[in-house]
Amino acid sequence: MRGALTLGEIAARLGGRVAGDPATAVRQVASLDSAGAGDISFFSNPRHRAKLAATRASALILSADCEALSALPRIVCDAPYLYFARVSQLFNPLTTQAAGVHPSAVVGNNVRLGTGVSIGAGCVIGDNVAIGNESCLYPRVVVYAGCSLGDRVILHSGVVIGADGFGLAHDESERWVKIPQIGAVRIGNDVEIGANTTVDRGALDDTVIEDGVKLDNQIQIGHNCHIGAHTAMAGCTGVAGSTRIGRHCILGAAASILGHIEIADHVQVSACTVVTRSIRKPGTYTGIFPFDENRTWAKNTALVRHLADLAQRVRVLEKEKKSG
Amino acid sequence: MRGALTLGEIAARLGGRVAGDPATAVRQVASLDSAGAGDISFFSNPRHRAKLAATRASALILSADCEALSALPRIVCDAPYLYFARVSQLFNPLTTQAAGVHPSAVVGNNVRLGTGVSIGAGCVIGDNVAIGNESCLYPRVVVYAGCSLGDRVILHSGVVIGADGFGLAHDESERWVKIPQIGAVRIGNDVEIGANTTVDRGALDDTVIEDGVKLDNQIQIGHNCHIGAHTAMAGCTGVAGSTRIGRHCILGAAASILGHIEIADHVQVSACTVVTRSIRKPGTYTGIFPFDENRTWAKNTALVRHLADLAQRVRVLEKEKKSG
Amino acid sequence: MRGALTLGEIAARLGGRVAGDPATAVRQVASLDSAGAGDISFFSNPRHRAKLAATRASALILSADCEALSALPRIVCDAPYLYFARVSQLFNPLTTQAAGVHPSAVVGNNVRLGTGVSIGAGCVIGDNVAIGNESCLYPRVVVYAGCSLGDRVILHSGVVIGADGFGLAHDESERWVKIPQIGAVRIGNDVEIGANTTVDRGALDDTVIEDGVKLDNQIQIGHNCHIGAHTAMAGCTGVAGSTRIGRHCILGAAASILGHIEIADHVQVSACTVVTRSIRKPGTYTGIFPFDENRTWAKNTALVRHLADLAQRVRVLEKEKKSG
Repeated sequence: MRGALTLGEIAARLGGRVAGDPATAVRQVASLDSAGAGDISFFSNPRHRAKLAATRASALILSADCEALSALPRIVCDAPYLYFARVSQLFNPLTTQAAGVHPSAVVGNNVRLGTGVSIGAGCVIGDNVAIGNESCLYPRVVVYAGCSLGDRVILHSGVVIGADGFGLAHDESERWVKIPQIGAVRIGNDVEIGANTTVDRGALDDTVIEDGVKLDNQIQIGHNCHIGAHTAMAGCTGVAGSTRIGRHCILGAAASILGHIEIADHVQVSACTVVTRSIRKPGTYTGIFPFDENRTWAKNTALVRHLADLAQRVRVLEKEKKSG
Repeated sequence: MRGALTLGEIAARLGGRVAGDPATAVRQVASLDSAGAGDISFFSNPRHRAKLAATRASALILSADCEALSALPRIVCDAPYLYFARVSQLFNPLTTQAAGVHPSAVVGNNVRLGTGVSIGAGCVIGDNVAIGNESCLYPRVVVYAGCSLGDRVILHSGVVIGADGFGLAHDESERWVKIPQIGAVRIGNDVEIGANTTVDRGALDDTVIEDGVKLDNQIQIGHNCHIGAHTAMAGCTGVAGSTRIGRHCILGAAASILGHIEIADHVQVSACTVVTRSIRKPGTYTGIFPFDENRTWAKNTALVRHLADLAQRVRVLEKEKKSG
Repeated sequence: MRGALTLGEIAARLGGRVAGDPATAVRQVASLDSAGAGDISFFSNPRHRAKLAATRASALILSADCEALSALPRIVCDAPYLYFARVSQLFNPLTTQAAGVHPSAVVGNNVRLGTGVSIGAGCVIGDNVAIGNESCLYPRVVVYAGCSLGDRVILHSGVVIGADGFGLAHDESERWVKIPQIGAVRIGNDVEIGANTTVDRGALDDTVIEDGVKLDNQIQIGHNCHIGAHTAMAGCTGVAGSTRIGRHCILGAAASILGHIEIADHVQVSACTVVTRSIRKPGTYTGIFPFDENRTWAKNTALVRHLADLAQRVRVLEKEKKSG
């Protein structure tokens, strides 16, 4: 926590309009449920109206059409969730690890570290790595040799950048011959990568993560992928090798994007969807198999395996109809 | 191994009835296949009757209705698998790492460690963490600042507790604004978490894992989740943010539970099932898309994408029938 | 890079026929796009004909039927991709980490290390582990006590070998009783395992990975699995406990293989396919639910949950037809 601000001071910095006493001081953000004196909360989901009524927050952030729902001191703005994010940044740092290289970290030769870089305990940075200003690597991150990170990059614990891609050729006796992975990984500015996510180095050319990309935990990015700027992926998603994903895409959790395809800008892929071919048009794409009570599922699913038969029987009925 | 016990001694501690010589001594558990002299094995699956006949075990654990299937010294009990688990605990420790903090571990400020805690090589424990009695962190676990673990918690290698949740707001130009994650993770007693599993800290409030929860490897628990006591999840499962899962649930491997939903107590979710909405009623729920030979799959699957057409054609046939 | 070779020297080592000047010297492999002077590239995908025309490579690898597509110095061979893999191995090492044990690694008691073994920074090797000749463990690998690796094994960062399998029994009050995992993991020769992949130790007997198996990143292998020689699995795949997979199988990315089943030799499982029962016959098996624009998906998917109804209605129409 960094000391209190009044609603007036916040609005002066971030915009919006104060309703109620602008001298109201807050010093931390909190949820409607757990907020107490000195906390500012936000309201954006109409389902939480009961929580709004019951909150003990000192102040609120909400949109104009909800302004009348509370008599608490409040900041009225267009995008309450975004506004709340910015208020939280006033009170809380984006990263919580001090600048500098922890003595237990292992840093290779010819590594370039920008100003204000933080390398946590147990990190291992290979030779010839470059890390931009103000970047923060939490404990136990590995960056293999030759990879580069931009400015303000955040890597959470367990991230592995630049391990070998999965490049294999079958020999005459169906044994695997390893293809040395001689590309690297290039990561832009303002990228955040979640715990235990892996980004493989390229086979020949580099794997590229553009500026502003946000990857959640346990994601796998295959070799030679190119992820466009400001794209976000939720946890457990996998992108197979040599796939190119556009800018401003959103991939839901546990989505799987197969290899060697292209996804346009502004595409949204729903959680758990398997993308098997290129997507050329912005929009939302989904492929979730519906769940059900086990018994009902078993009955319906057995039929999926005989859909071609069913369709054929309908065709026969239609034909008989016509001819009859 | 901790020295031999006779069947009589085992039954005195754990219950059950000895058939055959109660002075038979055993000193380790083993599978029917690999057991030898001094080993006790168990039989619970009727498909393994041939293995039972061939086993070289010195003794067996089985249920009353199987008692006559073997003439070996044996313990007869109601739940042979559970009994076997308890016998194994007599001969084998639950964790294999000595108490104490390994010199290569990095422990932050104001960390409270209970008695008998074991912190393995390369672990990193953030400031203000609390770890209860007899808990065991295998090598290379990271616990971020402010998180707490109960008693007898086991964390396997590569676990990351308390990395930032995936909290982002879109700004006016569709760039991502990070929301500082100021909650923590609270883990109860008797929780075990498998290798490379990640549990994110809460955005505002805490992520909570109640007593007795068992998480397998490579699981992802999003921020603000609440996992009820004695729930178990098999490997590769993901639970998205702000979801609340009840007590005594079982989630099969690679299940995906979407965010902001609720799952009642005593719910079982089959492996690889995507749960897209709240489940209010105990029971077993499934959503596995059936696999098939590739050719058959291709034929049937093409029709899934035209099911609405097929249903419409059936409606037409029904209508014609009626009117005809 | 290890110095230049002429096409003639390469063909003398690896076979194939040189077309054009055999004295052409190359010193590195590169993609058609990025190759320059001194690079040798390969051509195997007819879709890349434009790239072939534009490449600045000094030499090419291609098959006889493509020989006429370029006038560059070239090596003509039967399997250009395999040949390229072997050429790349002439110029690039298979692993990039020097032999020896990094001082920050922690090695237990009674560990046997073969000749030329490389143990990276922050690795933790438990007691009684054996590691064969020329094996390379990149930084931050954990091998639990009692496990063994063959020769020329490559483990990438974040790999965890031998954590406890997920073995639990329900007690009388539906609480979980842990079954000590007293087996180990045995890994053969020439196995490569990708970043953050986990292989659990056996419950009673060992988990076995045979020679030449290649596992990509973020894979989970459950306890007591047996993976046959020369089988490869792409990223994010999971194999549940006690499953036996044959030799020369290929599992696509994010496939899920349920527990206690058997998969024959030479089986290919498509990406994202859930294998719920044993596969006895070689072949390709698929179970991907098709994705679509969200609106179309929603319409078709609603019907999946009523397929049994639809089939019943078709049956009624057929019956009426017959009786009418």
